[in-house]
Amino acid sequence: MTGTLAIAGLGPGDAALVTPEVTAALAAATDVFGYAPYVARVPARNGLTLHPSDNRMELQRASDALRLAAEGRNVVIVSSGDPGVFAMAAAVFEVLETEPQWRDLTIRVLPGVTAMLAAAARAGAPLGHDFCAINLSDNLKPWAMIEKRLRLAADADLAIAIYNPRSASRPEGFARALEVLKDAGCGERTIIFAHAVTTPKERIDVLDLREARPEMADMATLVIVGNSATRRVGRFVYAPRRAS
Amino acid sequence: MTGTLAIAGLGPGDAALVTPEVTAALAAATDVFGYAPYVARVPARNGLTLHPSDNRMELQRASDALRLAAEGRNVVIVSSGDPGVFAMAAAVFEVLETEPQWRDLTIRVLPGVTAMLAAAARAGAPLGHDFCAINLSDNLKPWAMIEKRLRLAADADLAIAIYNPRSASRPEGFARALEVLKDAGCGERTIIFAHAVTTPKERIDVLDLREARPEMADMATLVIVGNSATRRVGRFVYAPRRAS
Repeated sequence: MTGTLAIAGLGPGDAALVTPEVTAALAAATDVFGYAPYVARVPARNGLTLHPSDNRMELQRASDALRLAAEGRNVVIVSSGDPGVFAMAAAVFEVLETEPQWRDLTIRVLPGVTAMLAAAARAGAPLGHDFCAINLSDNLKPWAMIEKRLRLAADADLAIAIYNPRSASRPEGFARALEVLKDAGCGERTIIFAHAVTTPKERIDVLDLREARPEMADMATLVIVGNSATRRVGRFVYAPRRAS
Repeated sequence: MTGTLAIAGLGPGDAALVTPEVTAALAAATDVFGYAPYVARVPARNGLTLHPSDNRMELQRASDALRLAAEGRNVVIVSSGDPGVFAMAAAVFEVLETEPQWRDLTIRVLPGVTAMLAAAARAGAPLGHDFCAINLSDNLKPWAMIEKRLRLAADADLAIAIYNPRSASRPEGFARALEVLKDAGCGERTIIFAHAVTTPKERIDVLDLREARPEMADMATLVIVGNSATRRVGRFVYAPRRAS
């Protein structure tokens, strides 16, 4: 087997945040797989076949990509942000569990700037102290686990980056998450809504969590809840390096 | 005030992981500040003054950089990884709290690939499910807070990225952290020691936490503790997208 598979992160949106490593992998690729809006960020060229697919097709996409790599192609699966954070890398390894014949392929994960880092940078430095990242989608885990993690993260006084806060199919989860955090004493904390960060539609809203409304988030929003010491200075939000 | 200040992340080490945004900022800079080993990664050229400084000089460095920017220079402060994760961005905002005359400067935070993302990519996808990042340095926070956070993170079944696990001045902290995690029932979990990731000295070791020894980590090591569902497939470690 002489083909290769790279699972690459395109960063949050701005081409200036795509690493040279990923750019080089795309330049050498014969085939690019991914969720259609991410594949659309890869420029078409002769010799490159684009394979866009729908959301929630992760395992099929991973399997198709591995099969082409096994046939000798140079395949790249693209994710937004970082491929290892709530994205395609885990799906590829899940397929490898059941398809051992592909484990000897040259497989590389190419990291990228994940959404919470870009959102934090635009807002200031709200992840400058200990923090966690929680995916609010309950497609693959029970909602009770999400609530438990939010409560424990609040108790640990971690800043909390919330991925996938809200979708059309899960309109109520984020509303419940805000209630959980208020119940856990986080009402006075700063919350950041980073919408479409690093794209022309970027919008950053900063307010106290008790004033946050569920409809402030959608699937293009990354939410960061500060820790108890998080402060505002001028237009910036940051977590002091010293604990409160 | 026409000067600018960018707080830029150089990524974990490999030049192929420096974003074009950061490369452009360095190309436009008149002055670069930072901890000496990071400044050493910036190529010298005519018209660029390098200002390397020692570790633990963060506030002085931030203040010096802001002062030069206020004089009209184009200043970049460099951090390894991402500048907003246990790095220089928070220090700059701390200085802005006490020096309001600099708040109208053009200040930008330029995100980068933080160490845990590069380490995770090399190992597989251990951060593919909910996770947290905890800095083990107790220079700026009480050790009791670190222990509490480790226990709550274990209880929440988060993967745990441990930054700054060990230094010459704090040889005992990581040993205690391993004991805390074993006490919290994490002995069977997978632990990854990612040493000098993406550099020529890179080394990735994967073992069960109960077999980990404190001397496996140093200041160039990023440690990732898997969650209870983290698995190995071939040479890779990953967190399944489904909860256990």
